[in-house]
Amino acid sequence: MFKFEIDIKRGKKRTGFLTVNGITLETPLFMPVGTQGTVKALTHRMVEDIGYKLILGNTYHLFLRPGIDVIKQAGNLKKFMNWKGLILTDSGGYQVFSLAKGKLGNRKAKVKVTEEGVEFRDHLAGDLHFFTPERVIEIQEIFGSDIIMPLDHCIEYPSSEEFTVEAGERTLRWLERSLKAKNKNNQYLFGIVQGGFDGKLRELFAKETVKYDLPGYAIGGLSVGEPKEIMYEMTDIVTDILPEDKPRYLMGVGKPEDIIEAVERGIDMFDCVIPTRSGRTGILYTSYGVVNIRNEIHKYAFEPLDPECDCYTCKNFTKAYLRHLFVSEEITSYILNTLHNLRFYAKLMEDIKSAIREDKWDLLREKYSAYCFTH
Amino acid sequence: MFKFEIDIKRGKKRTGFLTVNGITLETPLFMPVGTQGTVKALTHRMVEDIGYKLILGNTYHLFLRPGIDVIKQAGNLKKFMNWKGLILTDSGGYQVFSLAKGKLGNRKAKVKVTEEGVEFRDHLAGDLHFFTPERVIEIQEIFGSDIIMPLDHCIEYPSSEEFTVEAGERTLRWLERSLKAKNKNNQYLFGIVQGGFDGKLRELFAKETVKYDLPGYAIGGLSVGEPKEIMYEMTDIVTDILPEDKPRYLMGVGKPEDIIEAVERGIDMFDCVIPTRSGRTGILYTSYGVVNIRNEIHKYAFEPLDPECDCYTCKNFTKAYLRHLFVSEEITSYILNTLHNLRFYAKLMEDIKSAIREDKWDLLREKYSAYCFTH
Repeated sequence: MFKFEIDIKRGKKRTGFLTVNGITLETPLFMPVGTQGTVKALTHRMVEDIGYKLILGNTYHLFLRPGIDVIKQAGNLKKFMNWKGLILTDSGGYQVFSLAKGKLGNRKAKVKVTEEGVEFRDHLAGDLHFFTPERVIEIQEIFGSDIIMPLDHCIEYPSSEEFTVEAGERTLRWLERSLKAKNKNNQYLFGIVQGGFDGKLRELFAKETVKYDLPGYAIGGLSVGEPKEIMYEMTDIVTDILPEDKPRYLMGVGKPEDIIEAVERGIDMFDCVIPTRSGRTGILYTSYGVVNIRNEIHKYAFEPLDPECDCYTCKNFTKAYLRHLFVSEEITSYILNTLHNLRFYAKLMEDIKSAIREDKWDLLREKYSAYCFTH
Repeated sequence: MFKFEIDIKRGKKRTGFLTVNGITLETPLFMPVGTQGTVKALTHRMVEDIGYKLILGNTYHLFLRPGIDVIKQAGNLKKFMNWKGLILTDSGGYQVFSLAKGKLGNRKAKVKVTEEGVEFRDHLAGDLHFFTPERVIEIQEIFGSDIIMPLDHCIEYPSSEEFTVEAGERTLRWLERSLKAKNKNNQYLFGIVQGGFDGKLRELFAKETVKYDLPGYAIGGLSVGEPKEIMYEMTDIVTDILPEDKPRYLMGVGKPEDIIEAVERGIDMFDCVIPTRSGRTGILYTSYGVVNIRNEIHKYAFEPLDPECDCYTCKNFTKAYLRHLFVSEEITSYILNTLHNLRFYAKLMEDIKSAIREDKWDLLREKYSAYCFTH
C-alpha cells in the first residue's frame, strides 16, 4: 500500500505522512544512500537509531555486486541486507550516464544510448551490459524495493535544446514501457521529470509526466553542475505543475541549504551522498557551519563537535579526539563522522517539519544561517 | 586500588577476580587492542556491549599521535578517549624494536640500544626519539593508564645466549629504574619476564623479576616467530615460578588455541591484534573454525556466520551478505567482522572460565577442537 497525506501547507512548503507497505514516514524526508546494500560506515542499527526508516539503494551497483542472482536467491534486497525499513532503488540511469564522464572509475566508458536502451561497460570488470526500461523494472522487482524508479535519459549541464527535448521525450517513452513491464502491486513506480535547464522544457515534461498518474514524482537531472539558481528555478517550475497530493522527490539533492530551498519550493523527498561521503573525508555538518575536522585548530579542542547535536559522537567525544581519529585514519573516525552527519541531516528534516507546522520558517533559516546564503 | 583473588584453581588453570580502580574483571581475560585510542573499526559502545571493560593502548603510537601534549591537556588518555573502562598501556618497547625489522612502515629504522635507553626514528615523520625507562613511565603517568608496563629489551627468535642474558639483565635494571621513576598510586606497574627461548634463562629472569614484588607479572618476548611448542614451554616454566596470588599476563598472545594452551599453563591475561586485524582482512573466528569470508563458496550462503554466536553480526546477517560487504570493500564489513571476532574471543574467555569452574576442560577442548591441534 501507498498513501500520501498532506498535513500542513504553508505557501509551497508542506509537511505530510507517506505510508508505504505498512511503514509511515513524515515528510519532508531525507534518504541516506546505501549504494551497495549498506549505508557506508554504519550498521543498520545505527541508521535506524538516528531516525531513518527509508534508505536508497543503487540498482547499477547492486546489479553488478552482489548480482541479481544472489539477491533473488536471498528472497529480495531487504532480506539479503536484513533491512527492516523501506528501500527506494534508483534506475541505474544516472550511474550509467556517469560512466561516460569517468565518474565511477579511472577511465571513461563508452555509453551507447538507443531507443531500445543503454549499452555500457561497467566500472569493475569492464563487462558489457544492456539496460532497457523493462530490464530495469525486472531487476527492481527482484530487489523488491518499495519505491522504484524508471530508466531515464540523464543529460549534462549544459545541453542543447534539441538534445534536451530528445532525452526528455525518450524518458517519457521509457516511462511508458516501464509501466507496461511492471508486474508487482507492492512496488510503487515514480515518474521522473527531465527537461534539462530550460524552464519551458521542464514545464512541458512535467505536464507530460503527470499524465501517467503515478504515486509520486521525481525531478531528475538537477544538481549536476548547474548554478544553484537554475536548480532552484527548475524545481520551482516543476512543483507548480506536479499534483499537490503526490510526493515530490528531488533526486541527488543536496547540501543543507539546497534542501531548505527545495522544501520552500514544495519538495517532500531527498537523497544525497553528501552526509555519508563528507563524513569519510572529515567534512562535518554542524549547527554553526561546516567543520573540517582534519584542521590543526581542532588539535586541542576539548569540546563537543556540536553542542546542539544529540548524536552518539557529539554526546561522547571532543573535536580533538575526532581530529586524532581522522588524522590517524582510524575506521572509527568514519563511523563517528558518518553517524554525526546523518544525524545532523535527520535533525535538519525534523527542524524543517517543525518550522512548517509552527509557521516559523524565518527562525529555521536563521538557525541554519550558516547554510543559507541565498534570499 | 588493585586486588587479585583466585576463585577456582584446577592444575595450573585458575579463574579469578581482578579489581583495578573500582572495576572488577573476571580472569582469565582478553584485552582488545586499541592502538591509537580506539579499538579499530568499532565504537567504544560496541566494545563495551560485547563484554570488554579493559583495553590495551600502545604507548609508542599514542606518544606519536595525538602526542602527549594533547593527552595531557585532555586530562589523561581515558578522558581524551572518553573510555569508561580500564586501560593497560604497553611500554612501547615492542614497537620500537619492531622498527628495526621494518614492521611498522616501509623502511627499516636504525634502533640504538644503550644502557640509558633506546634511540629510534619513528615510522611516521622519521623524527628522532629517545625512550628511557623513566620517560616511558612519565608518558604512561600522563596517560593515566590503570596498568602500566616498564620499558623492556625485546629480542628476536632466535637469539644467542649471550645476547639473551644481556637483554634480560638490562630489562631487570630498567624495571628497577621504572619503579624508582614511578610517582602515582593509582597506576599499577607489572614486571616483564624476558629470557628468550631458553628454559633456564626464563627461569632465572622469572626468579629475578618476582623479587620486586609487583602487582602482576607479564611474560614478554614470546609469539615472535618461535615454534608454538617453545612458546608453551617457556610459559610453563615461567608460571611455575611466578607467585600464585598475582595475575599473569602473556603479552601479544594469541590465537584461540594459544589462549587455551596458555590458560592450561596458568596465564590470566592476554592481548592480541588477531581478532581485530583478522576482522579487517575477512578472517573470521567461529565455533566451527576459521572462515575466510572472501571465499566464493559463501556467495549463496544464506545462513548466519556462526549459529552459536550471539553477536549483532551473527544474529542479523548471512555469510552471503558479509561476503558481499567484504568483496565490495564496505567499511560496514570491517565493523561487522571486528564485532564478531571480538565477541568470539569474549565468548572463548567465558567458556574457558566456565570450563575451569565446572571442571569440564576436556569438553572445552572438544568445543574448540577446530583450534586445538596440540596434545
